[in-house]
Amino acid sequence: MAKVSAQPAKGTRDYLPAAVRQRQYAISIIRQVYESHGFEPLETPALERLDALSGKYGEEGDQLMFKVLLRGQPLVQGIEQAAALLTQPGAVIEGRSGKTAPGAPALLADLGLRYDLTVPLARAYAANQAALPPVFKRYQIQPVWRADTPGKGRYREFFQCDLDVVGSTSMLVEAEIAGAAVECLTRLGFEEFGLRTNHRGLLRALVDKAGLAPHQEVDAITAIDKLDKIGADGVERELSERGVDEGPRQALLGLVAGGSVAGGGGVTLERVAEFLRGHAAGEKAVAELRQFIELAGDTAAGPRVRFDVSLARGLGYYTGTIFELVSPRFGGSLGGGGRYDGLIGLFLGREVPACGFALGFERLLLLMEEGGLFPPNLGALHLVLGATSDADGAVLLRASRELRAAGLAVSMSPRAEKPGRLRKSAEERGAPFAAWLEGGQFQLWQRDGDSTVRGLDATALTQHLLERTR
Amino acid sequence: MAKVSAQPAKGTRDYLPAAVRQRQYAISIIRQVYESHGFEPLETPALERLDALSGKYGEEGDQLMFKVLLRGQPLVQGIEQAAALLTQPGAVIEGRSGKTAPGAPALLADLGLRYDLTVPLARAYAANQAALPPVFKRYQIQPVWRADTPGKGRYREFFQCDLDVVGSTSMLVEAEIAGAAVECLTRLGFEEFGLRTNHRGLLRALVDKAGLAPHQEVDAITAIDKLDKIGADGVERELSERGVDEGPRQALLGLVAGGSVAGGGGVTLERVAEFLRGHAAGEKAVAELRQFIELAGDTAAGPRVRFDVSLARGLGYYTGTIFELVSPRFGGSLGGGGRYDGLIGLFLGREVPACGFALGFERLLLLMEEGGLFPPNLGALHLVLGATSDADGAVLLRASRELRAAGLAVSMSPRAEKPGRLRKSAEERGAPFAAWLEGGQFQLWQRDGDSTVRGLDATALTQHLLERTR
Repeated sequence: MAKVSAQPAKGTRDYLPAAVRQRQYAISIIRQVYESHGFEPLETPALERLDALSGKYGEEGDQLMFKVLLRGQPLVQGIEQAAALLTQPGAVIEGRSGKTAPGAPALLADLGLRYDLTVPLARAYAANQAALPPVFKRYQIQPVWRADTPGKGRYREFFQCDLDVVGSTSMLVEAEIAGAAVECLTRLGFEEFGLRTNHRGLLRALVDKAGLAPHQEVDAITAIDKLDKIGADGVERELSERGVDEGPRQALLGLVAGGSVAGGGGVTLERVAEFLRGHAAGEKAVAELRQFIELAGDTAAGPRVRFDVSLARGLGYYTGTIFELVSPRFGGSLGGGGRYDGLIGLFLGREVPACGFALGFERLLLLMEEGGLFPPNLGALHLVLGATSDADGAVLLRASRELRAAGLAVSMSPRAEKPGRLRKSAEERGAPFAAWLEGGQFQLWQRDGDSTVRGLDATALTQHLLERTR
Repeated sequence: MAKVSAQPAKGTRDYLPAAVRQRQYAISIIRQVYESHGFEPLETPALERLDALSGKYGEEGDQLMFKVLLRGQPLVQGIEQAAALLTQPGAVIEGRSGKTAPGAPALLADLGLRYDLTVPLARAYAANQAALPPVFKRYQIQPVWRADTPGKGRYREFFQCDLDVVGSTSMLVEAEIAGAAVECLTRLGFEEFGLRTNHRGLLRALVDKAGLAPHQEVDAITAIDKLDKIGADGVERELSERGVDEGPRQALLGLVAGGSVAGGGGVTLERVAEFLRGHAAGEKAVAELRQFIELAGDTAAGPRVRFDVSLARGLGYYTGTIFELVSPRFGGSLGGGGRYDGLIGLFLGREVPACGFALGFERLLLLMEEGGLFPPNLGALHLVLGATSDADGAVLLRASRELRAAGLAVSMSPRAEKPGRLRKSAEERGAPFAAWLEGGQFQLWQRDGDSTVRGLDATALTQHLLERTR
């Protein structure tokens, strides 16, 4: 048989034991924080119906979605095949529900891989509403898939760690979510980071008050969102290219020219509030944002919250307060979220208020690795156990059983090994002890101190280990 | 916008909080048992290259595999489209690597969803061999996908919990794996179950010694595998239909007619050994099986191991000892495994010995639910906290923070609620306490005893809770 490449598919990774343990460590801390805030776990299938996924993520999202070939479709299809079908008058090709009439187009895919955890939440919330509380606080930690161009920290399969509150318009929700997000980072060992915040209604009001036309709103917010990357000059150029006149352009730039928090500048909320005085929607947004900042002050997020007029969080489904975790050591975002009152109800046909946050899990792991934030030994193994002769298998099995019954994690070597090899294996596996059977008795080696105790039976070996691990 | 169905895709499920907690509970016990036996975690991507997956699971497997549409392919394709292409002389259609020449067939799919965890282990082992120990003991708990017809306990997305040892031919491996598998079930609360065992070499030898032709081996083993379902008469009929002559048929049936262990009968290994005397491969298989049964006696599997001549474990990749967990309360298998020395090396181009076991996770969960084996309250929540007035948000946030800092899990209600609603919510969420802010002071209600303490500030509330939860 010809050898097939052993590499994982493009943009995906194998997680070897040390990597799995690091991921499990981070997930367990995030889960603890989410649970301590009263959020409940939800899991949804990797595969979703394409009609549930499509059209929710914009054109780019639809393109980057992995779509699943309809069962029964041939793997290879093309001009010859179609031509052959064309020349057979009775030919049928397979479609959505089995067979379709000759000449009818065939649907090639009906399922897609989960692209995020928010649309699945909306679908699952609608499907299970009767079984869920009126205010549903859920968290979800699962992989998602996007056929993006892979790069550093950017994969085609990656985890998201979402928390959302569905069914409440209270600003307490925003504050509690921001607090939980900040606490996750603190508990993971991050020190220098901030939480930028803004409000989508405030951005819309700014654009309106500055005198831009309604159809220029999206372009203008997109341009402001890039302030950190392209600077005030770049934003002005972009606005000009989009046909925004000089007057409105200068009015808008006058407010954001000071630069964003991340850029070192800082336009205060007071200044923006002054600019928006008399603009009803703008005043409402300012009041909401002030309330958020005040309430967040009573959570772990408090000292880290900073207003940033240039924060826009893309142009998706957000409707109110938005916020983003930023670290000076990493250009991009470490996670973000906000209020989105329009999305959850899509499957119900009515509006359902919601606010959520997603941690950028893969980026967090990269930074934790770089910053040495993982504990040194995440393995659970206590002992590597072996024998210098193959004849002692049954003795090894019985000793392993006794050790495990005492609560110890034991890796038994299935073949005869020299003591040096077993000690090395213990080091490689992060186990503090190695033991080997030689001449009917066990010898116990302790890595810390490099000391060996001889002449033990299985029970004495267990006793020694229990004394040293407690 | 038209409402889209909120149901999950066919054969898949949403896991609501209680279900996620049950799954996490079972997984954490299985993981503890695997880790205590020295197995290390591996995780592989959901998506694998189709050339890595195809041809490993037989024709049925290739059909049931979910294949991912090549990016850039239109979602709908058919005769009109192909005809239109045909009439354009310069037309190109997209293929594996972007564009292919006009007239060349287009590959529609290049990736597939993981069908099991064994082929991904083989691929990942080959890709990462330099970083892995010579004897690699790995476990893997991840979902797999099969486009099977859904039924009770049979889904299109389901979890597998595999453990495998790669790189050793020692029978200690089989014994340790069988012990770990049995310990998982015991720790999950199962009492009545057994471990049937047989040997693929023994089955091949039996068929040979009975006088069947080599080409009848597969059919005969398939027929024996069905003994529990179709009885001795059924097996005889099937053998007859496959052209096995009366003499060989009777010789074979004479051995298995007593019925399998599960069927209440029992052909002893001694009787089979006698029949195989003088058959070299058969004697070797009998010796190996005896060794396995003896060594397994020194593990948790010991008293549960029973030879069952009718066990065949399908017709896949097994080469030596095979074993299967069976419960009288469930017709099918609760998990199975064995030695398979041919598969792991497929990606390396050389044979690598291996032995493994997979628990039937979804079936275990069904039986645990039916048997009441889940602890009653798997939630981590201590307290539902609320206020009778919306004005007290900041006080609630500060109290939540103080309670969480003390290690308590608190779900804060974001809107004003009556005390009765908060008590009910605590009951529904499995929290032992509810507390509410009324007139500037907290009242603490304890579900156990239905008692309420009044007049607490946040610090006193925290103290009371800490005393009652320790």
